[in-house]
Amino acid sequence: MSYLDDILKSRRDTRHFTNDEVPDEVIEKALQAGHWAPSVGLTDATRYYIIKSPDVKYAVKNLFLDYNKKAEELTDNPEQKEHYKSLKLEAIEEAPIGLIIAYDRSVLNQFTIGTVGSNEAVKFSSVCAAQNIWLSLTEQGYGMGWVSILDYYQFKKILDLPENIEPLGYFCIGKPATNYDNQPMLQQLHWKQKSATPDCKEIKNINENHVLDSESKPQVKTEIKSDFSTLLQNKIDSKTKPVGALGTLETLAFQMATVFETLSPKIINPNIVVFAADHGIANHGVSAYPQDVTRQMVGNFLEGGAAINVFCNQNNIQLSIVDAGVNYDFPTNANLIHAKIAKGTQSFLHIPAMSETELQLCFEKGKSIVTAIAKTGSNCIGFGEMGIGNTSTASVLMSLLTGFSIEECVGKGTGVENEKLLQKQNLLKKAIQNYSGQAELNQQLAYFGGFEIIQMASGMLTAFENRMLILVDGFICSVAFLIASKINPDIHQNAVFCHCSAEKAHQKLLNYLNAKPILNLDLRLGEGTGCAVAFPILKSAEAFLNEMASFESAGISRK
Amino acid sequence: MSYLDDILKSRRDTRHFTNDEVPDEVIEKALQAGHWAPSVGLTDATRYYIIKSPDVKYAVKNLFLDYNKKAEELTDNPEQKEHYKSLKLEAIEEAPIGLIIAYDRSVLNQFTIGTVGSNEAVKFSSVCAAQNIWLSLTEQGYGMGWVSILDYYQFKKILDLPENIEPLGYFCIGKPATNYDNQPMLQQLHWKQKSATPDCKEIKNINENHVLDSESKPQVKTEIKSDFSTLLQNKIDSKTKPVGALGTLETLAFQMATVFETLSPKIINPNIVVFAADHGIANHGVSAYPQDVTRQMVGNFLEGGAAINVFCNQNNIQLSIVDAGVNYDFPTNANLIHAKIAKGTQSFLHIPAMSETELQLCFEKGKSIVTAIAKTGSNCIGFGEMGIGNTSTASVLMSLLTGFSIEECVGKGTGVENEKLLQKQNLLKKAIQNYSGQAELNQQLAYFGGFEIIQMASGMLTAFENRMLILVDGFICSVAFLIASKINPDIHQNAVFCHCSAEKAHQKLLNYLNAKPILNLDLRLGEGTGCAVAFPILKSAEAFLNEMASFESAGISRK
Repeated sequence: MSYLDDILKSRRDTRHFTNDEVPDEVIEKALQAGHWAPSVGLTDATRYYIIKSPDVKYAVKNLFLDYNKKAEELTDNPEQKEHYKSLKLEAIEEAPIGLIIAYDRSVLNQFTIGTVGSNEAVKFSSVCAAQNIWLSLTEQGYGMGWVSILDYYQFKKILDLPENIEPLGYFCIGKPATNYDNQPMLQQLHWKQKSATPDCKEIKNINENHVLDSESKPQVKTEIKSDFSTLLQNKIDSKTKPVGALGTLETLAFQMATVFETLSPKIINPNIVVFAADHGIANHGVSAYPQDVTRQMVGNFLEGGAAINVFCNQNNIQLSIVDAGVNYDFPTNANLIHAKIAKGTQSFLHIPAMSETELQLCFEKGKSIVTAIAKTGSNCIGFGEMGIGNTSTASVLMSLLTGFSIEECVGKGTGVENEKLLQKQNLLKKAIQNYSGQAELNQQLAYFGGFEIIQMASGMLTAFENRMLILVDGFICSVAFLIASKINPDIHQNAVFCHCSAEKAHQKLLNYLNAKPILNLDLRLGEGTGCAVAFPILKSAEAFLNEMASFESAGISRK
Repeated sequence: MSYLDDILKSRRDTRHFTNDEVPDEVIEKALQAGHWAPSVGLTDATRYYIIKSPDVKYAVKNLFLDYNKKAEELTDNPEQKEHYKSLKLEAIEEAPIGLIIAYDRSVLNQFTIGTVGSNEAVKFSSVCAAQNIWLSLTEQGYGMGWVSILDYYQFKKILDLPENIEPLGYFCIGKPATNYDNQPMLQQLHWKQKSATPDCKEIKNINENHVLDSESKPQVKTEIKSDFSTLLQNKIDSKTKPVGALGTLETLAFQMATVFETLSPKIINPNIVVFAADHGIANHGVSAYPQDVTRQMVGNFLEGGAAINVFCNQNNIQLSIVDAGVNYDFPTNANLIHAKIAKGTQSFLHIPAMSETELQLCFEKGKSIVTAIAKTGSNCIGFGEMGIGNTSTASVLMSLLTGFSIEECVGKGTGVENEKLLQKQNLLKKAIQNYSGQAELNQQLAYFGGFEIIQMASGMLTAFENRMLILVDGFICSVAFLIASKINPDIHQNAVFCHCSAEKAHQKLLNYLNAKPILNLDLRLGEGTGCAVAFPILKSAEAFLNEMASFESAGISRK
């Protein structure tokens, strides 16, 4: 075993320290070791923060305690819970030195070598630095413990770290009080055994079947049965009210009965599906929020705290969340439909947002998601979205597919105002000018599209094939509908436009689609909230058609 | 400089290799070094794949070329683009060994220590392993290059990696052909200079403005704001949505909280009261229906077959039916609130509709009905009406109280069209001309008023006194509100205008009242149906204010 191997092997995640001071030279030497770590594209994005103040440590410790309690609650196994509670997992207050290793995400605002495939390369460089520091401290006779059980949002807040600085964790440094019998502490305490050897396989062949292609355009022709329509209209007009006095509710009841092909239509297992994805164009400052908010909001959906959760609960609507391409790895056990195409699209400012294969994959995923929902017996599906930057994508697609100028198609999104709005317009105009492809739908969609927008469009086409009522939410969702309707114009028959958004281009698009929205409440949130809030109106339409007395049954004079 | 430092410093991201073979023992030793890396919660999630096959390397190289082209296009600076193109960024085909370092995301399906704050800890462990391998190879006289310029989706596909395996990149391993003058290649070629020292700061204080206790309300704790409205607006703005993105729902929530004087308003025992009465003017052919329909419809309400029954059932609203003056004797045991003033008013074409005493009685009855409802604990009351001929009464009152001409105040009611509409206008114009009384409210109300309209106006005033939310239905109900607001203008604070009716004068009246209706569904039925159909929107406002997460509680970045 080499000298290096000795160090590598004796490096421990340390949670027990002596009271000995850590001389400044030790830290300096360790940070220098970190500095020798790789740095993708020579970005030099790693940042260090030293903590000696007991007050700061105390505050961090409290954050740990808070999240550790959460962690405890993640296991239902009482024995495991007790074992977990007995483990010492940090030494925030005891360790003489606290270190925060972080990376500066803002380096990505410049052209950066090595990040086109995944911008995670920047954070990986900082992790390598962390490992170097660990090894250097080990060589010098010191130890380090990595604390990751923290609410990172609060962590940044209390330490007043800028938005662009992303900490990897809190690192406790000091003289180790034990070497845990030369093994990981969790192994020593029989939490788990580390495998004796690394897991390694040789890959000898490539997978030849990797490009999937299936080009199926739904062409379901719905015949208008005039007998049925007459019967239906008679039923509506026989209700104890002046003819037409329930206005839009009568139109909705007529549509619902026609789509479900019955005079007594019932909405069954209504479902709202929220498709989330990131957009490369978000890096160009088109949104008031950082890209990371996409994943944060997906977390919020999963936790039940977002507006769409509240409205779905209120109205007994099943909610499904789809990762269509968020720039984050969600745990596979999350209550999430995994349909990730990639970690966000590329920025369409200069290059296509996605490849033709990815586009095809969007269509496949959207189809399979909605097919699965139809199989639960659902006959009514609402579409919603979440994706920082997606109003930009939607605006460009609207402009290309309708012929409206980009100025007419751009709004303030989640809150971009004045000069920033003008910048957004100019940027999108430039992107359209840069596009050298043809005016062909698939090519345009691949170049500008968002993963969630295309999956929604595909899902809508599938919902139509399954004779489902399609609830269309706001601006972005309507752009998805626009795409779907270009592929199959018959889809209009099944669409219910739930609201007109405060996003100004939406009214224009609704006019173009000849659509009359149910609500005008200045909503501009997305997430499918317009669908959920309008849903009781649909239920009112269903209810009056099925439950109201007729003039005949109630013995009331017609005029 | 220590032995370790030497290794750390001489480790290079290598893209130039000799043709020398790499013995298996070198790789084994290196992977063992990787295996000594930290592993969060002892998950052992790192996986290795070795590639020696030229075909596999060729396929990976093509993926690189594809994405490298994309990367080139990300810079607009022509000089930078040329410089970039000249850089050798990989040695996929030349390096004798290809290594894929990956992590198995499926470990997160089990309870895993250290991942509650961020599941990225799992991938960070694998990055540490990568760094260990790099150092081990360096010590052994070999080099490694990390290739991250790849479409990771295609990469996984061609290598047939399972969904749960996430590669960090493709690593080229071999004997280095150069040490780049002991510095990073990008520095040697003047792409960038690495900074001489690590970037490190000490954090001496915590940010006191953060929220330590996630349960408490941050605004209350950090600032002393006695102003209820400010607190309320802060609560609304702290919800996980862009400011104002829930449009009218936010306005409604604000109003509801203000009326109920609590930051967590709850609608309790909502009630819709339908006041029914007949009108002498109906004998002059102003309605499409015979007067008897008033009593028939009251029967329908009691039987549960009318639209208002259906919508109240749908939305769990208590329904109360009031006989305010129907031209029929209902049995006293009917489930009806008996407040009959007389069997319909007189026709105001020539004489007063009611006496001053009857007017006074209307005010008393309206008050006692709503007082009784308030005593059930209800804090939200909707008003509806039924009375053949009552749009005529309402039109005249609107004209007198607003100064609009009678033409502007007349609509088709339950369905009067064309010449009949003109007749109706002329008749009402004549009635106003015949009026010789003063422009004094009570006198006007007695002369033209309907029993149900005055009882509603009185009921609204009582609801205001009882701090109830007042739901205003369509045209006739809005005229009742107009009367109430002439008596007490403060009543506006409690009024929710539920919809804009298809009755054309309604829009005009709403504008006069400066009221923004919730729904625009072309309803023109009365009965309080607009209140009942709009009610779930109010519930949505209540729900978002009480149930949505805040940015703080959900840990989401504000803009």
